[in-house]
Amino acid sequence: MNYKYIREAAYEANMQLPQLGLVLFTFGNVSEADRSQGLFAIKPSGVAYNDLSPEKMVIVDFDGNTVEGSLNPSSDTKTHAVLYKQWESINGIVHTHSTYATAWAQSQRDIPIFGTTHADYNTVDIPCAPPMNDEMIKGNYEYETGFQIINCFKEKNLDYREVEMVLVGNHAPFTWGKNAAKAVHNSAVLEQVAKMALLTEQINPQAPRLKQALINKHYERKHGPDSYYGQS
Amino acid sequence: MNYKYIREAAYEANMQLPQLGLVLFTFGNVSEADRSQGLFAIKPSGVAYNDLSPEKMVIVDFDGNTVEGSLNPSSDTKTHAVLYKQWESINGIVHTHSTYATAWAQSQRDIPIFGTTHADYNTVDIPCAPPMNDEMIKGNYEYETGFQIINCFKEKNLDYREVEMVLVGNHAPFTWGKNAAKAVHNSAVLEQVAKMALLTEQINPQAPRLKQALINKHYERKHGPDSYYGQS
Amino acid sequence: MNYKYIREAAYEANMQLPQLGLVLFTFGNVSEADRSQGLFAIKPSGVAYNDLSPEKMVIVDFDGNTVEGSLNPSSDTKTHAVLYKQWESINGIVHTHSTYATAWAQSQRDIPIFGTTHADYNTVDIPCAPPMNDEMIKGNYEYETGFQIINCFKEKNLDYREVEMVLVGNHAPFTWGKNAAKAVHNSAVLEQVAKMALLTEQINPQAPRLKQALINKHYERKHGPDSYYGQS
Amino acid sequence: MNYKYIREAAYEANMQLPQLGLVLFTFGNVSEADRSQGLFAIKPSGVAYNDLSPEKMVIVDFDGNTVEGSLNPSSDTKTHAVLYKQWESINGIVHTHSTYATAWAQSQRDIPIFGTTHADYNTVDIPCAPPMNDEMIKGNYEYETGFQIINCFKEKNLDYREVEMVLVGNHAPFTWGKNAAKAVHNSAVLEQVAKMALLTEQINPQAPRLKQALINKHYERKHGPDSYYGQS
Repeated sequence: MNYKYIREAAYEANMQLPQLGLVLFTFGNVSEADRSQGLFAIKPSGVAYNDLSPEKMVIVDFDGNTVEGSLNPSSDTKTHAVLYKQWESINGIVHTHSTYATAWAQSQRDIPIFGTTHADYNTVDIPCAPPMNDEMIKGNYEYETGFQIINCFKEKNLDYREVEMVLVGNHAPFTWGKNAAKAVHNSAVLEQVAKMALLTEQINPQAPRLKQALINKHYERKHGPDSYYGQS
Repeated sequence: MNYKYIREAAYEANMQLPQLGLVLFTFGNVSEADRSQGLFAIKPSGVAYNDLSPEKMVIVDFDGNTVEGSLNPSSDTKTHAVLYKQWESINGIVHTHSTYATAWAQSQRDIPIFGTTHADYNTVDIPCAPPMNDEMIKGNYEYETGFQIINCFKEKNLDYREVEMVLVGNHAPFTWGKNAAKAVHNSAVLEQVAKMALLTEQINPQAPRLKQALINKHYERKHGPDSYYGQS
Repeated sequence: MNYKYIREAAYEANMQLPQLGLVLFTFGNVSEADRSQGLFAIKPSGVAYNDLSPEKMVIVDFDGNTVEGSLNPSSDTKTHAVLYKQWESINGIVHTHSTYATAWAQSQRDIPIFGTTHADYNTVDIPCAPPMNDEMIKGNYEYETGFQIINCFKEKNLDYREVEMVLVGNHAPFTWGKNAAKAVHNSAVLEQVAKMALLTEQINPQAPRLKQALINKHYERKHGPDSYYGQS
Repeated sequence: MNYKYIREAAYEANMQLPQLGLVLFTFGNVSEADRSQGLFAIKPSGVAYNDLSPEKMVIVDFDGNTVEGSLNPSSDTKTHAVLYKQWESINGIVHTHSTYATAWAQSQRDIPIFGTTHADYNTVDIPCAPPMNDEMIKGNYEYETGFQIINCFKEKNLDYREVEMVLVGNHAPFTWGKNAAKAVHNSAVLEQVAKMALLTEQINPQAPRLKQALINKHYERKHGPDSYYGQS
């Protein structure tokens, strides 16, 4: 089996999506990239998770061309390709239609930072990219979805190495990370943060955003140079 | 065993309902039709899913008469019969009282199209048929339920081959498809779309409907002549 | 083992509560009565469901006196006793703090009849008894809880043989039926109806109550003299 | 194995958190103290529950110094240490980011006492400590979190032996008890009470707090000198 490592990593990460309750049927896909070869392994389109195997992952280059595999790659493959090509330090991408994150995307609102659960991962509101304009939609849609995400980060002056998740307006979330497993982890965190943010506004419509000192503290204890969360 | 194929297909599809969290106790039923014989197999009424078997499915004709089976067919059998008789290209029907779809039915509102999850299946709001008038209710109730659905589609100028789901006002959802398995799939999608639509309105009461270009794009990539979702 | 039948029936019904997601820890209890002996078997107080057995059920008479059993009976035993003594045709009672039914009880509102799921079981709103007055609370509290329920039915002119469920204001639901298994069934239905009613009001704050013709039809097809739901 | 009893107690209690649905990934930690030695065993930081064992628990003194263990203790260890040092009769502490309790913490509201489920555990609203001031956050953060909790109890005139749970504003809940198992029990109760309180306000925004007579009755029957809940 060629590309064994990324096939297995992509397979394992895809199988986590139903385990974590992030997908109904085939509403999600994960890829893992090998930057040395300029390739990634991604879920085949429309195949049930129970029928997946590492061998069925499709190998695609960063322009979205299939390099190896008899099955069609995920219909979102070009979005993955654009993100890998433009953002050089990520090696895993996840797309789901998880319930609460998708509801926020449909509402076209950024998710406010209300607490330390959020701050452990992001120092800012989780951005919601606006829906694309009609030209982009009618054109190379999934390709343009990637640029819509990248443009959103440019306009909001965000760094994809700091903020590893985004909502695409009217659509659904994408997350990424150093590998597919981390990107899946981020998808589950996003779903949990999205649910708690809605509940927070329901309990207190005037709930304030987290104060800056707490934002800094929680992020730094997990990610800063003197971080002390987890094992070194 | 006569009618083996439709008995087994109806049995397997019925057993999916509790697996997918769409039913409490016996609050749901699935049928699968054989058009060459003008018959369908349907769940017996009030029998627990754990006690079902292909043999216990009841064989009914398109006028609602039992052809084979010692058990009473589902109390909703006549609704199934009317839909099979009037809508010639469907071979599977599901009725459930799934939580979120039923709440929308009880609220007597169409489910607005807020995102691409919805658009992957329907280009329009999911219709809610109004409650029946008293004459229809007092008459042949389940039979009239079928006509209430058909009339709703006529009035809203919808095509049952495009829109495979409906809410019956104050009651609950019905879905259909090319076979029972697809109809069950549609029931699970409807429940998920119903839940996300409510959450979307809670997050943003002014959430806009999906723009037309996105509606067209998502539906066509899954169902259009140049569809590229799944494996051909 | 004495009282084998009611011990086993009460045991089996109690074990259904966690299976149906109706209890956290020991927040619930079920009893089954034997009218020929004027006794019922009820869960011992504060014992985890995993540690139950038919032998551990406590045998109590209709005045609330323990007849057989070394464990203390449920702290709600006197409520069961009053209901059995006053309402002569019930043989099973359930008390839970199930999430949505309890939230309605805490809100001190009857659950409006919004759809056919509700109407399949009740032709009226599910009643919420007001909180007791201070004298009753300070007195024989659990005994008075039973009378609070009975008085609520009298004031609302309800028949306990038709409406097999009630909310006790600020407290939680009680359900009953011809045996413990049916009372548990009613508890699960109540929880589902309670959840769907809240969701219905969230989707449409002006959602109308079910029209009378539908109320009559659904109830009669399941419970009337010409019922045609289930197997005869 | 040294400290066998507290290692095993802490391990068993930590393993209950995912079982009870109170944690995503590693978002929670439990400790069990041995007062005779002035030590407690606590979860190592960032280690998945499936990879835990009694041996991996870290032994820490009441000043937060690691006494035995090669892994880093939970990043919240100093909060545990402060609480053990200041509150002399507790031997178990739990911290989670459970969904509904955390949403209340993020909303910075006390959880109103709406019903008997709440009153079985507390006679007062569940307190929400305000977010810390910036000096405390920038200083010894987790240590100060402990004092924020203790100060909240002083200001509200609450007794930690009566009220075994708190929300830390913008952050998440802490619970405690006579041992780790009881503290975990309290975490699950808090999450359930938090969920039901939100639902209660959604059903009836004017829902009244529980009347004092019921508060007293329910608490006393479970905790008073004449308590009659459970087995003696």
